[in-house]
Amino acid sequence: MDMHELTRELIVRNDSKIVMLVADGLGGLPLAPGGPTELEAARTPNLDELARRGISGGSIPVKPGITPGSGPGHLGLFGYDPLKYRIGRGALEATGIGFELSPRDVAARGNYCTLDAKGNIADRRAGRIPTEASAPLAARLREVKIAGVELFVEPVKEHRFVVVFRGDDLGGNVRDTDPQATGVPPLEPEAIDSASRRTAEVAEEFIAQGRKILAGEKQANGLTLRGFSGRPALPSYTEVYGLKAAAIAVYPMYKGLARLVGMEIVGQAKTLGEQIDVLAEQWNHFDFFFIHFKYTDSTGEDGAFDAKVKRIEELDAMVPRIAALDPDVLIVTGDHSTPSLLRSHSWHPVPTVLAGSACRTDRCTTFGDNEAIHGGLGIFEAKYLMPLALANAGRLGKFGA
Amino acid sequence: MDMHELTRELIVRNDSKIVMLVADGLGGLPLAPGGPTELEAARTPNLDELARRGISGGSIPVKPGITPGSGPGHLGLFGYDPLKYRIGRGALEATGIGFELSPRDVAARGNYCTLDAKGNIADRRAGRIPTEASAPLAARLREVKIAGVELFVEPVKEHRFVVVFRGDDLGGNVRDTDPQATGVPPLEPEAIDSASRRTAEVAEEFIAQGRKILAGEKQANGLTLRGFSGRPALPSYTEVYGLKAAAIAVYPMYKGLARLVGMEIVGQAKTLGEQIDVLAEQWNHFDFFFIHFKYTDSTGEDGAFDAKVKRIEELDAMVPRIAALDPDVLIVTGDHSTPSLLRSHSWHPVPTVLAGSACRTDRCTTFGDNEAIHGGLGIFEAKYLMPLALANAGRLGKFGA
Repeated sequence: MDMHELTRELIVRNDSKIVMLVADGLGGLPLAPGGPTELEAARTPNLDELARRGISGGSIPVKPGITPGSGPGHLGLFGYDPLKYRIGRGALEATGIGFELSPRDVAARGNYCTLDAKGNIADRRAGRIPTEASAPLAARLREVKIAGVELFVEPVKEHRFVVVFRGDDLGGNVRDTDPQATGVPPLEPEAIDSASRRTAEVAEEFIAQGRKILAGEKQANGLTLRGFSGRPALPSYTEVYGLKAAAIAVYPMYKGLARLVGMEIVGQAKTLGEQIDVLAEQWNHFDFFFIHFKYTDSTGEDGAFDAKVKRIEELDAMVPRIAALDPDVLIVTGDHSTPSLLRSHSWHPVPTVLAGSACRTDRCTTFGDNEAIHGGLGIFEAKYLMPLALANAGRLGKFGA
Repeated sequence: MDMHELTRELIVRNDSKIVMLVADGLGGLPLAPGGPTELEAARTPNLDELARRGISGGSIPVKPGITPGSGPGHLGLFGYDPLKYRIGRGALEATGIGFELSPRDVAARGNYCTLDAKGNIADRRAGRIPTEASAPLAARLREVKIAGVELFVEPVKEHRFVVVFRGDDLGGNVRDTDPQATGVPPLEPEAIDSASRRTAEVAEEFIAQGRKILAGEKQANGLTLRGFSGRPALPSYTEVYGLKAAAIAVYPMYKGLARLVGMEIVGQAKTLGEQIDVLAEQWNHFDFFFIHFKYTDSTGEDGAFDAKVKRIEELDAMVPRIAALDPDVLIVTGDHSTPSLLRSHSWHPVPTVLAGSACRTDRCTTFGDNEAIHGGLGIFEAKYLMPLALANAGRLGKFGA
């Protein structure tokens, strides 16, 4: 059962404030068995204080053993079952560069490729053409004209771009044109359902005109499209929780994900300190605040254990400023683990703490990967965190008489 | 959602090796409150070492409070939701005696019974006729001839046998003919759906000819059939996990269960030591090894606490030989608990340990029923063990971008 069927029914409105501080990729691993994880190695007096007065747990982003990308990771934290709500690659790429998808849009991820004289793919990534060379190509592809369709082409890194078709009757189910092989021509965009026929025609036209535009290029004289997808139909925070929600994020991807669930993007912060400034400024205007901190993930991805430790300590130092605003519920968690040891996202439970006047405090005295799973929240699926936040904020009524 | 929908989508192939050592009925109970369980009483330095470098948990075979038979117990460990995949009694009996069911087969469990002069059942189990007397009857029942159907009759213990009908259009939904009462005649085999009509006719013919063959018997002059069922349609390990899997088991039941999920049965081992010899011999030919150890269950069923302790110590002594092969992931678990105190299978969580280079070590320093549930895996449903094994072996890609 979708938890939103319950939360919608039980919404109570009040003046409480909920803050969810998401340290991306927070969970970690010891470098050697029995050693400390990054969070355990970090000096975190303020997070430890939260663990003492709050309740801790280990959050499973999707299901045991499943490593999420940023999309499913955040959907889980936002309380949307990541197995029910899937964000297509095209839509996620568009979201990731800050493109605000409308319900009339279909997005696809594009790759420049190198075609030989026969029209076969010689290099699927156009020799990983540098961003400086590929970005102007996106601007030129905007010259494509298709009747009844508004077109957006946005550069991404190296050989990548995003194309968005905006118009009526554009279904999102079209097959990839990248054959995932060289020595063969790109595939035709083929509609998977009848609602996507027009999208396939539009994509075909885009590719044909695009190839003419790129014909003189040496490396990037062709293109493939994949991950066709429309804006995911996610009910908003207002609908499912009765919350007016704000997102305070630095990177476009996380702003985009927050926007998909109806959060308002506030501020122009570039640092965590500035994000907390924005939080204070906006305090009276919202019920819920999502604050995203990127660097615990990026240091993990770099395999930089010590740097991740430092980033956690930087986060810790900001906790008193948030606590000083006296939120009714303050949550610190992550969308997934990113152990430096693995240099990648992982499936391990994410240390999570929730502090509020109605939480049942547990025996946790520090905030750490191992300590957290022995806390009062136990090991739980991320999608239950929002119902717990609402309950602790007095925002969920009784189910049944 | 079925976890296999996810695992299929996320399969990554690599050279890693996964070993799952299943001590049947491993979990136990103290003989008096506060005392040690069988595992806690056993001296297990090697399993304790695994607990120190690995991550522990308590595996719930099906759902809390549900005691599984061997079928659901193993399906859970193999990652097949035991509530979704049911193995009919006939199919399980056939599997248990090592009969390899084909997709064209329907199996039923047979009982010899004693019929009185009026054809009513006088004894539902033919006076528990000894196996020596019943086994030759099975051979005689093979004389039954039914057009278009190949017939197999195999003796089981005492009054029990298995019959398998092999042919086209044989559905598995036929009602039991055992009325579960005496003083009444056996029931007619009745098709529950139209696809099983022919099976019902075949069964009726088998019973009629069988009664003629048995007519001169004193005790076993009749027969009943129940648990009609076809080969369960389980997707294979290759399909759902991308694993080439081997089963190293001594008893037919466990070989049969492994075969149902597409494992290859290797070796002719009769002892655990020989099973480990087979493991070493086959090491380079498979990705996944299921090793089954029976005696922790049979001693539990006998109510022999001390004997079960000894069997656990025997198991412990073999762990270094497995570890020496350097598996990427080594799991020790059981398909259910079999506490000597209860002399039967039980619902209690099964102590489980998973060791691998990417596991987050926990605080467990010994391998025991109570210690395990406080480990980093917490209390989890058995069906999640395979996704965790795959993740730890680097065999699952990221879900969503």
